Amino acid sequence: MITTEAKGLRELGTSIFVAMGSEKKNAELVAETLTEANLTGHDSHGVWYYPVYSQRIKDGWIKPHEHPRIVKETAASAYIDGHWGFGQSTAMLMMETAVKKARETMVAAVGAYNCNHIGRLGFYTDWAARNNIIAMMFANVGNPLVAGFHSTKRTFGTNPVSISAPTQDGVFLMDYATSLVAMGKVNVARAKHLKIPISWSRDKDGKPTEDPNAVSQGGWLMPFGEHKGYGLQMVSELLGAVLTGSRASMDGDKGPPSPNGVFCVTVNPEAFVGLNRFKEKTSEVIRVIKSRPSEPGEEVLVPGDPERISKEKRLREGIPLPEETWSQIVKLCNEIGIDASIAVKVS
Amino acid sequence: MITTEAKGLRELGTSIFVAMGSEKKNAELVAETLTEANLTGHDSHGVWYYPVYSQRIKDGWIKPHEHPRIVKETAASAYIDGHWGFGQSTAMLMMETAVKKARETMVAAVGAYNCNHIGRLGFYTDWAARNNIIAMMFANVGNPLVAGFHSTKRTFGTNPVSISAPTQDGVFLMDYATSLVAMGKVNVARAKHLKIPISWSRDKDGKPTEDPNAVSQGGWLMPFGEHKGYGLQMVSELLGAVLTGSRASMDGDKGPPSPNGVFCVTVNPEAFVGLNRFKEKTSEVIRVIKSRPSEPGEEVLVPGDPERISKEKRLREGIPLPEETWSQIVKLCNEIGIDASIAVKVS
Repeated sequence: MITTEAKGLRELGTSIFVAMGSEKKNAELVAETLTEANLTGHDSHGVWYYPVYSQRIKDGWIKPHEHPRIVKETAASAYIDGHWGFGQSTAMLMMETAVKKARETMVAAVGAYNCNHIGRLGFYTDWAARNNIIAMMFANVGNPLVAGFHSTKRTFGTNPVSISAPTQDGVFLMDYATSLVAMGKVNVARAKHLKIPISWSRDKDGKPTEDPNAVSQGGWLMPFGEHKGYGLQMVSELLGAVLTGSRASMDGDKGPPSPNGVFCVTVNPEAFVGLNRFKEKTSEVIRVIKSRPSEPGEEVLVPGDPERISKEKRLREGIPLPEETWSQIVKLCNEIGIDASIAVKVS
Repeated sequence: MITTEAKGLRELGTSIFVAMGSEKKNAELVAETLTEANLTGHDSHGVWYYPVYSQRIKDGWIKPHEHPRIVKETAASAYIDGHWGFGQSTAMLMMETAVKKARETMVAAVGAYNCNHIGRLGFYTDWAARNNIIAMMFANVGNPLVAGFHSTKRTFGTNPVSISAPTQDGVFLMDYATSLVAMGKVNVARAKHLKIPISWSRDKDGKPTEDPNAVSQGGWLMPFGEHKGYGLQMVSELLGAVLTGSRASMDGDKGPPSPNGVFCVTVNPEAFVGLNRFKEKTSEVIRVIKSRPSEPGEEVLVPGDPERISKEKRLREGIPLPEETWSQIVKLCNEIGIDASIAVKVS
């Protein structure tokens, strides 16, 4: 493992994407979202994307100079064409627009198409909640990897959903893929030559398997929570892809890799009980849950806690990156004449 | 079992609630929602509530002559005081208001407090989707029965969530409790003297148990889908109860039995890809899933299918009611001088 630090990773990412043709503001946003994913413990959505996005820019899939534009709008809604710029630029414009509108109209809905990979949904919903607005975000991933319930084949993306709310001292932040596990967990088991639980996936013939290679050999992941998680998986498909006119997951792999169809709704607590009472009572609910651990002395976590805990630790101790991830980043930096060492933590 | 039929059950319920002091329009709505629950296979939300609601009217919890009123409103939002009338009247006003507003402003949010039991959420979201509007509804139940994840004690209600969308030939209808199973399933096992799966519940000491009596003896149900379902369970609490200023589940059993705090969001597809394209593509997604059964010849169900299938069967063959449910209804009818036999199916 290489120990890096957030500030250096952000600066490095900004330099990389500027060198690849992006304006500084967009480059900073992309570097910020990917670094934040590592900080919050979601390495699968982190800076290993620096070389991946760079390759997509070279291949013409991400157009770093493009900007998202609102193509249809009402006081409470906006429909955005991402123009295949950075997905992060599109998602941030979505959430900024949705939060601004919710301040005026109390609720807003924003959808986007022609949108590249936006990274971790929680980045945007967290931002909304910190601005005292409740936010929901649904995305499909335009590459199938997950089957329906009692159904076979790669039909849906990992189709994440995130819902956030402001609390007295932070945010409530639900953010997860609707597959039972992320593909990253399967890859970790594969790297360690471990079996995986039989509930996670099926092989290419639809057979239950403990083989971590089965998914990448034509198999698929399973949805979480049986028919209930499957319902939410479909909601992310219908709102993220179908409602926005984006590529449905099942429409296959032609075109940009891993695009997102994205839809969000924002709600202003002032339309109802009011912001202060909402935050007070939300924090009280959280305190009560935390006072009831199932094992004495164990900490009860609420959505958003794992991210907060990881961020505190990694800001203090640095962000560990696997050698392979780091060497890919260094290789890219060498190609474009940037010094990667600014991201390495000096202890 | 007694075989009843929908038309008679509706007429009977209308007569009962008119006799209990309700206007005919409200009585019809309550009878319609409860009968529809039986038709769609959700007997736990069905006409066994005729005597239960009647008792709540006698006890003063349901005020059958009261009407819900909008207390705060913008073009896209409404905040409703249910005045402790029938929960169904409040929920129907919520959804009618949210659908009407979404036609104008493309998205709407409506919340309600002082709201009695509204029955099955799917009744209202289904209605919205049939009116070509996407709907989400979240409710808490103001009586705790479910623990948090890695937490103990009755903290949340069964906190349902429902999301619907129009399709070419019907509706997509997700509608479920965020507990792993409904309390009704535990009760069925108890009546049959069967053990229940160890994942369903904990006893009063927090120990895993196969005893179907444990929940009613101070134990609790578990959330579905581990930390992911638990997140959604909290969302229904925060949006249903906290945002609307309703009684939180953990605030206990004082006051009306089983009140709901309810929140809904509606979205007009015309703000995005347009209604026709949305319906076409949604139906295509559903066709593809259905063409991929995990066992040859098996039918792949999508959310809303079980309800549709049950309704077709029960409209044809009648609605079976347990002797005990039927005798409670007959007892009530005898007390208020109504002939219950109009609901019995004549074969």
